[in-house]
Amino acid sequence: MVQLFHLTFTQGFFIGQLSVIVIVYIFLRFFLFCTKEELKNVQEESYPLSPSNEKSTTEFNDATHKVTPSLSEIYDVKTHEEESLDWFNVLVAQALSQIRQDAVSDDAALKKLQTLFNGKRKPSFLGPIHIKSISLGQRYPVFSNCRIQAQPDDTNGLRATMDLSLEDDIHFVVNTSAVLNVPRPAFAMLPVSLSVRIVHIRGKLSIYFSQSSKSAKRAYLNFTFDPDFDMGIEIQSLVGSRSKLQDIPKIAHIIETRIRKWFITRCVSPQFQQISIPNIWPSSAREGHRQKSTE
Amino acid sequence: MVQLFHLTFTQGFFIGQLSVIVIVYIFLRFFLFCTKEELKNVQEESYPLSPSNEKSTTEFNDATHKVTPSLSEIYDVKTHEEESLDWFNVLVAQALSQIRQDAVSDDAALKKLQTLFNGKRKPSFLGPIHIKSISLGQRYPVFSNCRIQAQPDDTNGLRATMDLSLEDDIHFVVNTSAVLNVPRPAFAMLPVSLSVRIVHIRGKLSIYFSQSSKSAKRAYLNFTFDPDFDMGIEIQSLVGSRSKLQDIPKIAHIIETRIRKWFITRCVSPQFQQISIPNIWPSSAREGHRQKSTE
Repeated sequence: MVQLFHLTFTQGFFIGQLSVIVIVYIFLRFFLFCTKEELKNVQEESYPLSPSNEKSTTEFNDATHKVTPSLSEIYDVKTHEEESLDWFNVLVAQALSQIRQDAVSDDAALKKLQTLFNGKRKPSFLGPIHIKSISLGQRYPVFSNCRIQAQPDDTNGLRATMDLSLEDDIHFVVNTSAVLNVPRPAFAMLPVSLSVRIVHIRGKLSIYFSQSSKSAKRAYLNFTFDPDFDMGIEIQSLVGSRSKLQDIPKIAHIIETRIRKWFITRCVSPQFQQISIPNIWPSSAREGHRQKSTE
Repeated sequence: MVQLFHLTFTQGFFIGQLSVIVIVYIFLRFFLFCTKEELKNVQEESYPLSPSNEKSTTEFNDATHKVTPSLSEIYDVKTHEEESLDWFNVLVAQALSQIRQDAVSDDAALKKLQTLFNGKRKPSFLGPIHIKSISLGQRYPVFSNCRIQAQPDDTNGLRATMDLSLEDDIHFVVNTSAVLNVPRPAFAMLPVSLSVRIVHIRGKLSIYFSQSSKSAKRAYLNFTFDPDFDMGIEIQSLVGSRSKLQDIPKIAHIIETRIRKWFITRCVSPQFQQISIPNIWPSSAREGHRQKSTE
């Protein structure tokens, strides 16, 4: 015991420090820290972390099934007034001016329409179709009176309906020829020149969601017009080589019907155009797919 | 001449028909129809098809450069009132309920967050992170007071700005452990349990177009928040195995800062999220690409 008292001040100083460190180590090691095995049991115990919400572990499965405020709390379909869409018109106008700008650059629109017209479905009695001029108009569509309505075929479903009015001058001029293949192919050609001009489109546009069914895993934003749309089309035609027959009603009628039919079979209810909404959650199917593609 | 009169009525009838056919044929052949060579010259002549618009051939190049009504004619930024967005809130609510539904199906959200947390960027002193529960909330964001403003850095550019308010309970509970790797790896573990809860987000959301530059050929719809957003985050923590330290301010502060930083570096101006707008006109580059891929 006596030797202890000959340890210098410095040694005492270090021993003192050491003792505290040992005590702290013992506290940490045996009260806070634990070994791997102990860790498992600790994390199995349910943590009463959110006192305000007693079941913290199975919360996930219940949360989304709690009573979610129905959409009618946000918007009362019967009483809500129609809303203006001027801000929306500005964004659409910017998008349209971008589309028109892209259409002009390296004659992209001209080429696309020319390829479309001279595609496989061009009737044999028509010669090659040349587009002489094309204009995607200068003005902008005006959307207005937006309101939410119940879906006609699904009372739970809601859709946004808005009035659309476009007064513009979208037109193109094409040259082609009617080919007489009797008595031999291309025996004679009837030159035809056409100017097609869309001067106004008025109608009711509906936007609605189609929820993805369990398997489909994709939701869609759909766009459709009501059948009572109004489209103003002006068609001029010039047929013949030396003497020309101008504005033959029959030709105008055929082309106008074709344009309307093209529009109705794509955009008028019950038909619709749709944009698919990416599913932000990777489903196991897609992950498997991504693993396969990365192997 | 006399023999002519012995031809029967029927022969006369046929000859009569033939003569008319010949006349019509001559008229069609020489006045309306032409040969292939003649067709070329006919179609080179300019067709005065749209009297109301004298230059029908070079119309395309001029049309889009005619004076396009400027956006200020549609929307006067200085005087226009703010517009309501209730219809927009309904569509956003439908999209959100779809996202929540997808998140629940086969625990997609749980898996995604777990993979994210245990990714490469997880610090070495942290053990595996287990998500005990997750909830994407039940209520819906409310957008309001939409107005068009000039872009701060581009006086020609316009953007739609709207107020966003979301009062909800988006939260998740995770279990992990702080690993002491001294004196040997995984020498001791400090169990940590965290509950992170986002209770409100308020701010100003701006939507604007970025026109595609000539080369880029893509336009984008951009979304960004103003820096003065307000996010209410509640963090609870439980540290320790036998005796537990609850709600250590330092941990709450670290996590809250991390969440804010994550949000600011992605969604707060000058950063932005963007959706690319498909270029509906195939440019020669892409067509070349498509031809190469189809060869």
